[in-house]
Order: sequence, then structure tokens, then C-alpha cells
Amino acid sequence: MTTTVCDVAVIGCGAGGYRAAITAAQSGALVVLIENERVGGSCLNYACVPKKALAHIATVLCQAQTFMGAGLKGQVSGDLPAAIAFKDKVVADLRRGLPMRLKQHAIEMIKGQARLLNPHQIHVDGPDGSRVIEARRIILATGAAPRALAEVPVDHEFIVDADSFIPSLSVAPAATVLCVGGGALGVEAAFLLQEFGSEATIVTRGPRLVDRPVVSDRAAALLERRLKEIGVVVRKGLSVRQARVVGAGVDVEFSDDSTARFDRVLVAVGREPRPDDLGLQALGLVCDARGFVVTNDYLETSVPGIFAIGDLKGGPMTAAAAMHDGRVAGENAACGNTRKRNYNQVPLVLDSVVPIAAVGLSEDMAEAAGFTPDVVYIPFGGSVKARAHNDSVGFIEIVYDEETGQMLGGCIAGAGADELVHLLVAACRSRRGLWSFTDLDYGHPSWGEDMGAALDPHLVKLLRSANTLFRPGIYAAAD
Amino acid sequence: MTTTVCDVAVIGCGAGGYRAAITAAQSGALVVLIENERVGGSCLNYACVPKKALAHIATVLCQAQTFMGAGLKGQVSGDLPAAIAFKDKVVADLRRGLPMRLKQHAIEMIKGQARLLNPHQIHVDGPDGSRVIEARRIILATGAAPRALAEVPVDHEFIVDADSFIPSLSVAPAATVLCVGGGALGVEAAFLLQEFGSEATIVTRGPRLVDRPVVSDRAAALLERRLKEIGVVVRKGLSVRQARVVGAGVDVEFSDDSTARFDRVLVAVGREPRPDDLGLQALGLVCDARGFVVTNDYLETSVPGIFAIGDLKGGPMTAAAAMHDGRVAGENAACGNTRKRNYNQVPLVLDSVVPIAAVGLSEDMAEAAGFTPDVVYIPFGGSVKARAHNDSVGFIEIVYDEETGQMLGGCIAGAGADELVHLLVAACRSRRGLWSFTDLDYGHPSWGEDMGAALDPHLVKLLRSANTLFRPGIYAAAD
Repeated sequence: MTTTVCDVAVIGCGAGGYRAAITAAQSGALVVLIENERVGGSCLNYACVPKKALAHIATVLCQAQTFMGAGLKGQVSGDLPAAIAFKDKVVADLRRGLPMRLKQHAIEMIKGQARLLNPHQIHVDGPDGSRVIEARRIILATGAAPRALAEVPVDHEFIVDADSFIPSLSVAPAATVLCVGGGALGVEAAFLLQEFGSEATIVTRGPRLVDRPVVSDRAAALLERRLKEIGVVVRKGLSVRQARVVGAGVDVEFSDDSTARFDRVLVAVGREPRPDDLGLQALGLVCDARGFVVTNDYLETSVPGIFAIGDLKGGPMTAAAAMHDGRVAGENAACGNTRKRNYNQVPLVLDSVVPIAAVGLSEDMAEAAGFTPDVVYIPFGGSVKARAHNDSVGFIEIVYDEETGQMLGGCIAGAGADELVHLLVAACRSRRGLWSFTDLDYGHPSWGEDMGAALDPHLVKLLRSANTLFRPGIYAAAD
Repeated sequence: MTTTVCDVAVIGCGAGGYRAAITAAQSGALVVLIENERVGGSCLNYACVPKKALAHIATVLCQAQTFMGAGLKGQVSGDLPAAIAFKDKVVADLRRGLPMRLKQHAIEMIKGQARLLNPHQIHVDGPDGSRVIEARRIILATGAAPRALAEVPVDHEFIVDADSFIPSLSVAPAATVLCVGGGALGVEAAFLLQEFGSEATIVTRGPRLVDRPVVSDRAAALLERRLKEIGVVVRKGLSVRQARVVGAGVDVEFSDDSTARFDRVLVAVGREPRPDDLGLQALGLVCDARGFVVTNDYLETSVPGIFAIGDLKGGPMTAAAAMHDGRVAGENAACGNTRKRNYNQVPLVLDSVVPIAAVGLSEDMAEAAGFTPDVVYIPFGGSVKARAHNDSVGFIEIVYDEETGQMLGGCIAGAGADELVHLLVAACRSRRGLWSFTDLDYGHPSWGEDMGAALDPHLVKLLRSANTLFRPGIYAAAD
């Protein structure tokens, strides 16, 4: 049997895996990347990328409709078959481009199913036969599966999950769709469905949409209001007791005894561990009660030399978090454990009818962490750019520590949030905190300018305080 | 005659003037703001704001057309009368809101024509009679006029200038429009005109569009290509020998002896000093050869206690630069001269068919300043987000000093440039320079992420260099 020797072997070529491989290669390691299915993982094939393409079309449609009679004329609507063809091409192009990008970093791609023989050997069973990879370090990045609900059994035709939702979008949009779960996938899917001609309903157990503490209540409330305005039905504090496929539809019974029939149901209630194809149990790798792999802050598992990143190890299950993990584990595997994971600095982005992006600590989280948080609220109603864009429902919230000026986090709701949040990320990482906004110049009109103007009086107030020693520990800032 | 006493009197309520008034008020000064015409100045009434509104509609139209057959169906076109009604409402709303905003800062607005009696007294002739303002410091912010061309005499009907262009956009778009000048106004106007149904031609003396050194040749070339793709005719190295209104159109003779007839001509060749209504000459205020008021780095004129900001004093004639001036002069007038102007840190933003935003030094400028610049070029062709947006013609260029890692500047061409540039502004201002991008996390997919990935190898390279002492003087960074 062939044996391939390398410094770092990465199992799984999703967003986290390829980021880990590239980072390790950039750090000087000889890297092998093993993937059994399509390169790109959930993110490229079923989630972030196709979703971003479809959400962008839906957003353009929304904007065009906003200006009908206010600068545009004609009529425009979503064309689902064409949109699907477009996103298929985007995904296929990117999937084709990925191996090339890996090649530039001298990363060897191996196709096949991996199984760990011991902490330094991986058996790979692929289309070109079997071989053994010998690696000084191994990074596991095989992701997770959509979490199943026994009461809503997925058949991938009428009842779909996170992996089959996007592929299930077919030439004729389903008339009525129930999204079970009001998290990121639920609010993103409902937006797409509604804009492309379906009638979407979101049902969620909790008291609000997007149950992520970094997303403020105000942002969740705005999102709910806007979803309802475009016709989405939002039912909170409710769950599905049972869903059954009957004929070409799904009969659903809710926890309040009400019933309804939908053409399709999307189960969007998070992710759970995949079956252990890798042989992790045999190696004695410690998992938590839910079955996610346990790691330390360096993302190393209970078995020295083996790292786990992304959804496989639980935690925030976004591509951005997986890529953060990839950078941390890639560097640690190549150079020794120096970098710690820190999800406070990873932005969370939602592409729904109101884009939302958030990073760091919310006011509640900051209080719980012992800070004295102050929140700067910047409504787009007063924003020149937002007025010029006919889109002034959004806002920016910035959370900082009143005593020291340390930047703690922020939440943005509104167009452009997905890029604007990077200014907040940079400030969270800066040793100057809120001060890093001092005397910045912005384009006019711009949202940056609105933010700067709203921060000015806070900066003046801080100027009068002598206490500028930040508390460490929230951000593992290298600066 | 009534006499009003204050700490700081600002003459002119444009973007620079109201920013100066607010900054001075925030610094504790009692402020009076004098305006003879409409509040908001050129920026709000004739330029940035109405342009941003119209450019946004044109951009939405472009995007909707891009996705026709690729996710959208129907037909959509520009509706100029409705667009004008929309922008009129936006401008009127903002104009109505401005006095309220000034009131929040306890700034007294006085309507009338100002004339300086001496360095501390201003005579104001207004609708409510005459009065005298006594001020410890005076900030002049009366702007400039569109530069006239003797060979293309403006009649504000068939031949318009920067101030009359937007108001001249009428219910029926002119069939053919010539833009004399390929600067910011020319490329922005041509985009609007073309998208709303006119046929635009740009004629410029120079060898490229947008003759601003901070905008790279690559960005200017891309802009030219895209303008041509939407149908704009671009004629370079050419000037207008004569233009004459004949009937309901304009006969134009070019410097190469060719002639053409246009329905309308826009003179867009920069700005020149206004007539001296303020009595500056009588006070002995020094002006340069072109007639712009001369100031020192603190924006103080040759007469102590009198400051001049924005277009009135020449320099980069953008609202962002005027607002930079406003902050500098507002603080200096209120607190003594501590802040210096620095246009290297002010972003330049163009809202044309390809949005462009740039800040700091270009490669050429950096070389001329004695740096060893390296340019990181990040084409959107490889960007996941740009692919998903079906809009991958743009790019980001980042200029930094290879020896020290000092961030020197950057130029962005493509959607979202106007906000993305603020990340570059912040890095230019940071003492960490390019290092401020180290270990930042970004949303996925996003343009921020593309930038971060492209910067990684440069950061690794810098890591190996011991020399990290930045050269001062390019940015008057306070940090």
C-alpha cells in the first residue's frame, strides 16, 4: 500500500478544512487534504455560497420593487429556475477553482474516505485505491449533519433539511413552506422563499427570532417586522408536535393543537454530530454529551497532535467560525500551539430581508462579563445615505466599556451590514478600542460617517477619563 | 443694531460649515452659523446627496438588468420624473432636518448675507433686518463656484454647470448630452444620464478619466471600460474649442476640428473662487494666484482668528474634505490650534457605473514621497462574494511600505467601495499599519475576507522583518 508522508493532514475540504490547509501551507508545512465528497463542504455546496447568490438576487428584487414608482418603472419578479441555474454555475465555477487554489499552495488533494489508524496514520479508501497518510499533525474538519427532529422526519422531498433545502428549490416554487426553527437558516430561507413566490411561515419555540445572544433584541424585532411586511408568517413560542407527508404535501400539527398543511417543510434546528466514520471512538477521542469533539483553546483534541475544527467540535456553526478555527488550528499544527480560538472576534452575518451582522459582546453579555457597557445606538432614520437609498429602517449598535473605552461588540441591521461589521471587528481587535475611531474621515454620505458622528460625543466623554487600561480576556488580541 | 456675541461664528452652512459648527459646539463653544441661501450648501442641494440618491437608483437598475434572465424576469427601466421627485423629497426632508440637528447642539442659525467688518465682527443683512455678530473666532465656509469656460458659456438651460446640472434634469431626459471634463462630476453624471435614457459623451483633455493621483490607472481604465460598455462615448486628449446654443441644442466644435450637436452640455471642469461678497480683500486676507484663500495647516488664514475651510480655500473639493476641514477648524477655533489638516486620510468616493473609493497614497505618490511601496492587488474575479453577486470586475489595491509595513493607501473599484474604503482609512490611521489586519476575522463570503486573504502572505513576510518603525508625516495620526 502506498504511504504518503506529510507534516499536516486535513480531513474534510469545507470552509474550515481548506482554510486550515492553506494556513498550514503558508506557515511552511507540507499539507495533504482529504475529501470524500465534493470539495467546498456544506458552505460552498449547500449553504453560504448558493444562499449568498440567491439572497443577493432577492435583495436586488426587493430594491427594484422599492423604487418602482420612485425612479424605476416596469415590473420585475423572481425567476426561480434562472436563479437556480445562476447559483449552480457560481457554485460549479468556484468548486472547479478550489483545487487550483490549493495547488498554488502545494497542497495535495486526495479523494477518499478517511479512517484514523492511530494519531499519526490515516487510511484513505478512494477511487484510486487505498493508501496510508502519515502525518505529524492531523486536523479533523468533517463538519456536522443537520439536526434531525423525530417528529418531523426528513424525506428530502417534501420535508427537507439544511443540506437538501437549497438543492430542493426546484423550477416551480412550492406554494406554501413551513420553516421549523427561527435561527439563521430559518430567517434566510423564509426571505428567499417569499421573494421567489412562495408563502413562508416560520415557527420557533423561543420568544424571538435568531436566538443568538450577539444579535440584539432590537435587531431580532426589526427582522421580524420586516419579514412580516414582505408576507412571512412568524409564529413564536410554538413547536411542531408532528409532521407527516400525505400525498404531495405535509400535514403539520403544532404544540397549540392547531393544524395546517404545507407543500413543503424545512427543518432548520441546528446541527448534530455525524456518524463516526473516522474511527474517533476507537482512538479514544473525547466527545461531549451531545457527541461533538472536545478541544482545548488551541483546538487540539484529547489526543495530542489531533486537532478538530468547525462544526465537528460544536460551538458557533458558521463558515466564518470554521475559517477562524482553520487559521488557528492550521498555524498551531504547523508551528506548535501558539494561537487560541476566540469566537468573540468572529462576525455573525445573516442575509435576510434585513441583513444583520454582529460581533463580540451584546450589552447583556458585556454586563454578565463584568463590564460597564454603554450602547451607542445609531438609527439609519437620521442617515443621509440611508435616506438617499430609500432604506432607513436599519441601525448600528456599538457596545463599549464606559470605564475604559474598550470596544466590546456591535450589531448592525440594514443594507451593507455584512461589510460594515468589519470596521467593528477591527475596533474590537484594536488595543485602542473605541479610540480607534478617533478622527477617522469617512466618505459623504456613508454609513461609516453616521457611525463616526454618533461616536464623537462618546469619544469626547472618554477623553475626560484617565482610565484607559483595557481588561484582557475578551479578545485574544495579538496587538 | 442688535449685536450677538458668540465664541465661534461660522459663515456658510454647507457640509464643511455645519460640521465645523457642530464640532465647535461639541468642544464647548457658543456657536452662530450664518447662511444666506438654502442650508446644506452645494453638497445637500446640488451635488452629493441628490447625486447619491440618483446614482443608487441607477445602480439598482443596473443590478436588476444584470440579473434579467439570471434570477429575475420582467422589464425595468429608469423613470426620470419619479426619480427626480424622489430625490427632491430626500433633499427637502434632509434640509428640513438640518436646523433641528443644529438646535440639538445649541447652535444659533442666522439667515442673511454676511460681511466681515473686522477680524471679530460680522455684519449680517437678513430678512429680519441687519445685525452684528461678535465672535472670538470666525470660520469661513462659503464654498466655491463651478469653474466657467469662456468657450462654453453656461446659460443654465442648454449649457449647465455643476450647480445647475441636477436641477436641470427634467421630466424628459435630453437625448444627447456632452460632459466637458472627465473628473468626478463627469463620470458620475455620464452614468446617471446613460442609465436614465440619455446618450452621454465625455470629453476630457487628459490621457485618462478622473485625473486624481490617488485613483490608480487601473481603476480609471476599468471605469472607462465599464462606461463604454453601458454606451457612454469617451473621448480623451480632446477639448472643446467652442460651444454655441443654436435653437434647442448646442453646436460644439472640438480641438481636433470635429463638430457635433448635443441637446445639452455639462461643464464639469472643477471649481473656482466666488466673488468676494464677504469683504475678504478689505480685511487683507491673503489669497493664492487663483483666488482661493490661503491657510496654514491649522486652516487659519493670514488674519489670526479667521479660519477658512472647504472649497473656499482650494485643495480637494469634496464634501468629505470639507467635513475634515470642519472638524479641524471647528476644534482649533474652539480650543486653540492643535489639529492639522491632512487630506491623505480623507477618502475620495466616486458613484459611477463602477463605484470607486480611494484614500492615502497611490504607488506613484508613495514612491515620490520616498517610500518603498508594495501593492497588493486583489481582483474580484477570485472573490466568492463577487461571483455570487454576478459582479466580479472590481478589485482592491492596497499600498504599503515594504520596509516597515506602514499602510500608505488604497484604491477600491467595485460595488460597496464607498464603505469598504473605511477599513483602509482606519488602517492608514493606525500605528500598526498593515499589521492592523493581522488575525482579523471576516464574514464569509465577503470582500473583507478577500482582502484579508490577499494580505496574509504580506503580513507573514513583514513578520520576518525587524523594522517596524513607521515614518511619520504622511498621516498626522493622533495615536
